[in-house]
Amino acid sequence: MERPRHQGMAKNTSMRWRLPLVCLLWEVAMIVLFGVFVRFGPEADAHWEEEKREMNLTSDIENDFYFRYPSFQDVHVMIFVGFGFLMMFLKRYGFGAVGFNFLLAAFGIQWALLMQGWFHSFKSGKILIGVENLINADFCVGSVCIAFGAILGKTSPIQLLIMTLFQVTLFAVNEYILLNLLHVKDAGGSMTIHTFGAYFGLTVTRILYRPNLEQSKDKQGSVYHSDLFAMIGTLYLWIYWPSFNSAISDHGDAQHRAAINTYCSLAACVLTTVAFSSMLQKKGKLDMVHIQNATLAGGVAVGTSAEMMLTPYGSLIVGFICGIVSTVGYVYLTPFLESRLHIQDTCGIHNLHAMPGLIGGIVGAITAAAATEDVYGKEGFIKAFDFTGTYQTRTPSVQGGFQAAGIVVSLLIAFAGGALVGAILRLPVWGDAATENCFEDDVYWEVPEDEESDVYHMHNPDKPASP
Amino acid sequence: MERPRHQGMAKNTSMRWRLPLVCLLWEVAMIVLFGVFVRFGPEADAHWEEEKREMNLTSDIENDFYFRYPSFQDVHVMIFVGFGFLMMFLKRYGFGAVGFNFLLAAFGIQWALLMQGWFHSFKSGKILIGVENLINADFCVGSVCIAFGAILGKTSPIQLLIMTLFQVTLFAVNEYILLNLLHVKDAGGSMTIHTFGAYFGLTVTRILYRPNLEQSKDKQGSVYHSDLFAMIGTLYLWIYWPSFNSAISDHGDAQHRAAINTYCSLAACVLTTVAFSSMLQKKGKLDMVHIQNATLAGGVAVGTSAEMMLTPYGSLIVGFICGIVSTVGYVYLTPFLESRLHIQDTCGIHNLHAMPGLIGGIVGAITAAAATEDVYGKEGFIKAFDFTGTYQTRTPSVQGGFQAAGIVVSLLIAFAGGALVGAILRLPVWGDAATENCFEDDVYWEVPEDEESDVYHMHNPDKPASP
Amino acid sequence: MERPRHQGMAKNTSMRWRLPLVCLLWEVAMIVLFGVFVRFGPEADAHWEEEKREMNLTSDIENDFYFRYPSFQDVHVMIFVGFGFLMMFLKRYGFGAVGFNFLLAAFGIQWALLMQGWFHSFKSGKILIGVENLINADFCVGSVCIAFGAILGKTSPIQLLIMTLFQVTLFAVNEYILLNLLHVKDAGGSMTIHTFGAYFGLTVTRILYRPNLEQSKDKQGSVYHSDLFAMIGTLYLWIYWPSFNSAISDHGDAQHRAAINTYCSLAACVLTTVAFSSMLQKKGKLDMVHIQNATLAGGVAVGTSAEMMLTPYGSLIVGFICGIVSTVGYVYLTPFLESRLHIQDTCGIHNLHAMPGLIGGIVGAITAAAATEDVYGKEGFIKAFDFTGTYQTRTPSVQGGFQAAGIVVSLLIAFAGGALVGAILRLPVWGDAATENCFEDDVYWEVPEDEESDVYHMHNPDKPASP
Repeated sequence: MERPRHQGMAKNTSMRWRLPLVCLLWEVAMIVLFGVFVRFGPEADAHWEEEKREMNLTSDIENDFYFRYPSFQDVHVMIFVGFGFLMMFLKRYGFGAVGFNFLLAAFGIQWALLMQGWFHSFKSGKILIGVENLINADFCVGSVCIAFGAILGKTSPIQLLIMTLFQVTLFAVNEYILLNLLHVKDAGGSMTIHTFGAYFGLTVTRILYRPNLEQSKDKQGSVYHSDLFAMIGTLYLWIYWPSFNSAISDHGDAQHRAAINTYCSLAACVLTTVAFSSMLQKKGKLDMVHIQNATLAGGVAVGTSAEMMLTPYGSLIVGFICGIVSTVGYVYLTPFLESRLHIQDTCGIHNLHAMPGLIGGIVGAITAAAATEDVYGKEGFIKAFDFTGTYQTRTPSVQGGFQAAGIVVSLLIAFAGGALVGAILRLPVWGDAATENCFEDDVYWEVPEDEESDVYHMHNPDKPASP
Repeated sequence: MERPRHQGMAKNTSMRWRLPLVCLLWEVAMIVLFGVFVRFGPEADAHWEEEKREMNLTSDIENDFYFRYPSFQDVHVMIFVGFGFLMMFLKRYGFGAVGFNFLLAAFGIQWALLMQGWFHSFKSGKILIGVENLINADFCVGSVCIAFGAILGKTSPIQLLIMTLFQVTLFAVNEYILLNLLHVKDAGGSMTIHTFGAYFGLTVTRILYRPNLEQSKDKQGSVYHSDLFAMIGTLYLWIYWPSFNSAISDHGDAQHRAAINTYCSLAACVLTTVAFSSMLQKKGKLDMVHIQNATLAGGVAVGTSAEMMLTPYGSLIVGFICGIVSTVGYVYLTPFLESRLHIQDTCGIHNLHAMPGLIGGIVGAITAAAATEDVYGKEGFIKAFDFTGTYQTRTPSVQGGFQAAGIVVSLLIAFAGGALVGAILRLPVWGDAATENCFEDDVYWEVPEDEESDVYHMHNPDKPASP
Repeated sequence: MERPRHQGMAKNTSMRWRLPLVCLLWEVAMIVLFGVFVRFGPEADAHWEEEKREMNLTSDIENDFYFRYPSFQDVHVMIFVGFGFLMMFLKRYGFGAVGFNFLLAAFGIQWALLMQGWFHSFKSGKILIGVENLINADFCVGSVCIAFGAILGKTSPIQLLIMTLFQVTLFAVNEYILLNLLHVKDAGGSMTIHTFGAYFGLTVTRILYRPNLEQSKDKQGSVYHSDLFAMIGTLYLWIYWPSFNSAISDHGDAQHRAAINTYCSLAACVLTTVAFSSMLQKKGKLDMVHIQNATLAGGVAVGTSAEMMLTPYGSLIVGFICGIVSTVGYVYLTPFLESRLHIQDTCGIHNLHAMPGLIGGIVGAITAAAATEDVYGKEGFIKAFDFTGTYQTRTPSVQGGFQAAGIVVSLLIAFAGGALVGAILRLPVWGDAATENCFEDDVYWEVPEDEESDVYHMHNPDKPASP
């Protein structure tokens, strides 16, 4: 029996030539560019023995690999399992959530190694990479995964790859402006990753607005098992967030401190998320959407300040506030954004990344402005904010001002870049699905037969399924 | 069509005001107490540069962060993913298993940082925390997750939070008596975590005995996918247990040895679990309950002795025995405990934590009593048992005696504490579900509509489902 | 109502006495052999304090534990979660996939510690183990997990244990010939793990050929959720593969470099897998089988060369090629192997491990042959290929020749060993299932009732289910 679901599928969503062409051409481009530009950094190069002697290192354990590799692997899990599974809550978009996330991230990290490399690791014509570059590439792609959350289920894989290409580029530019020109601290990326990524994605989804999306409203929900899969994503993001925020901090106390602050903020965030999730429902029942998402807001919001002397109780306060802001956002703001501002935000990234990211930028600015030599120690103060060279005379309050400027720059580039990319993605050649086929895996995926018939059967219990 | 499932739900299970109130008040209390007491330890403080000089450390890699952070993250996964998913085997209690575990653990780690901090890290009026405190807080909460296993599906989230508050407190007291007063070794917590946690939980569930629980017998089983989700929990617990037992051992050989012993014990345990699971079934088929749980008993049972010179073959013997004890427990003891002693142990923690925990305490006492300078080396002997200062003259056999005393103390505090907490939880104000609604997510959770209708449909195939 | 599914089950598949007997006897044998042979290595022994002085180490952080333990845990996850879940794609064989993988790996690591210990860590009559031995044991078992992929769903747990016993033994012999006699480099095991494991498994499944396997064709597919579970396996293998290939490389730059090369190769592989998966389907839809498997081929194929100066762009090229080879293999080669050569390869290990493993061996030979002192530096060159002692005068091109010889040896031992083991497994006493019951958990597992009725119900929607 023919299933009627695809009758309205007038659009040509076949990826057969377009997707392979993009993937292959771009990968060839990566190979050429890597061939021209990318080499091993001194700590990964076989000349390391000589390097060690020059740097007067007595042991192999001083290789940056051992300082950062465990954190790198945690971050890697967050990008591929964390984001991939978190977005698996939709009842019929699990393949797309985890599969497209996989695709865009695998492409994105390569392009990010190049883009960030040109800006930050370029020496005598070559990009010299090490484990810190891998972490930064994952971070950069994290901002694309965030933006993907806003347009989840409504875009073709080609659109996602195009968005990745542009967003990684703009991320690197924004990051360069913040870290190098404004000399801003943002180890966990409240501004560079979350604020930028979220407002970029929200702008894109605004431009891709689909007026009749309620046609696929029934597919925008979850089923019992898809919510459980999504919890895998949530928990890995939650557990490894201390690694995320500490991964590229200075060796020693800064990494240590960043992990503790993040641990505290996330713990507090869970309590207020549960409180408000229950309070805002008439029957006081908990909503999995909140548990899956708002519990993570505390990690986002200490992204800038985690490596500073935020202190554990300061972290608890930030987490406390963000659990509330994020949960309230899911209940009241998301419907408002959709109905009034025509921003269709599938995963609610406005609540999980945009607002907490802004809060994180502000907390970072305040924490920096409030820094004193007394709290940090003379050496610690200089080291924490890197007040050396040109920045030797910068004061904490000036630093706070530059931090705040970093938020504004991130927002501006996000809006402008999102508008540009949204406009490109609206071109009718990328094979996106018709509105009635959104949030539906079988537009782009071979979906196993018998479970489909099962679902069909569920929706039409009076008719026999055809196995 | 009205589903008849909730007709008998006379009890008021609405959490709308009670749960938010508890969460918010307690989190505010945490913030205040952290504000007064908790500060960064020297290795996480920005003064670390000066500290390093004083301690004569030449490299940042000497920061305890690099010795323990990878193990910490593994333990963190065990608490939140391991326990959360292990308890997901029930067919309709997946949200509660993973969600309530998340809630109680997020609260518990904060309270544990304080309680353990007052006992162990209190200096000049402040609790100074570092990565080891985070691990210990996770450990402490591990004992609550264990107790949760006994009452899974029968308690409201408020009851769980109250139990967490008390259990963490008692855990810290018991731990202080064992580690500081009795000078007992228990790095992986056979006594402090498993014996204490399990007998505490079993006492609580005894007091909360529900006579007619067989009414919800059909919901106490698993379905195919819930068993697969539970295996995620099992495997992460099994894989990371070597990190658990070595996480707070002395730097160097002790951590190394603890990991190897645990690896060996767990491997042996799998073989005997499979053997007895097959042997005790008439048709010789394997039971997922055993594979999910009894395979982990070997990790519990080397919790005390893993950092000692137990030797790899000693570990295999312990694992061998515990796989058998635990599997036999699931087949014969759990039904007996329920029918005769009125101990309703949802997850069978008596088999996975209580008995193996006791065995672990005993193995630890014997291993300590059998220690010789020959086996450990002169320095190694003193270091392994910390026979310095007041304990300079303690002999191995005396140490063995104190280890045994540690078991008894843990049991006594578990029983007394469990009785007290059980009595408090029986008060009729905490919103626990009626017996016929136990093991059912939709008492406390918004459950997605269409999958419910699916389940309904499954149970009533002759009636049409209402989507 | 009696289900008709088992009518044809003439074979005696009861494991009641056979499986327990094998498990218990073998575990007792392990205990005895460990008791006689296995002791802690110097870095895990309590005499470490003295050892440290002798080796002139100033800090505990120089213990190999801190160089390798994080990688070890990642590899451990790959073996138990990675392989276990990857094989969970079959609709009704999830328990078997993850459970039997658990069983064989838990036995295999013990036997591997002994076998590899006798060859590589045997000193004065004892096998001295440390974290590197644990990694190598996991590696060895990895080759068994690969072979398991070929016979998945068609063998009894006893057959798997027997295969494990023999394959671990042969693995250790092959590894000894390659690493010690031929002095070949193979840190990530393209030859020793993948080529050997895959061709061994393919030979076994050829000999166990079942002519009427299409009888259970409907059970050889996936369902929606089983594909999502399988993605957990895929992603953890993909994410942690850089740890796999770098886990036993030399400290410092070699580990660092191996991780970077693997990261790059895997990223490129995803793009070409997606390209060809889409291109080779008439409608251009992506196939989860390819995404689950072929995306990993890039990790296999740099297994030999990752620790060499392959360079990031070299890694991209290898990944690029392998994504294509592997995907094309799934589409064209697997059906051909089954219909013409009677090789029934359940998981398609020929595409994921055999061909990429061969490519990896060849890439390793070429990379070694092309090595120059200019690229590696004088010291780095000697260190990378261990051209010391007897091998002081070996040239890169000779090394390349020996590398190539390593491939041939691995193939020969795989074919001969697979034939032997296949013949043993054909004996009619091991309780394997009848062909019509292949790929079906309830032959060896207690399967929860109501979900079975659900499945039954799905397939026979016109008849009522009996809950």
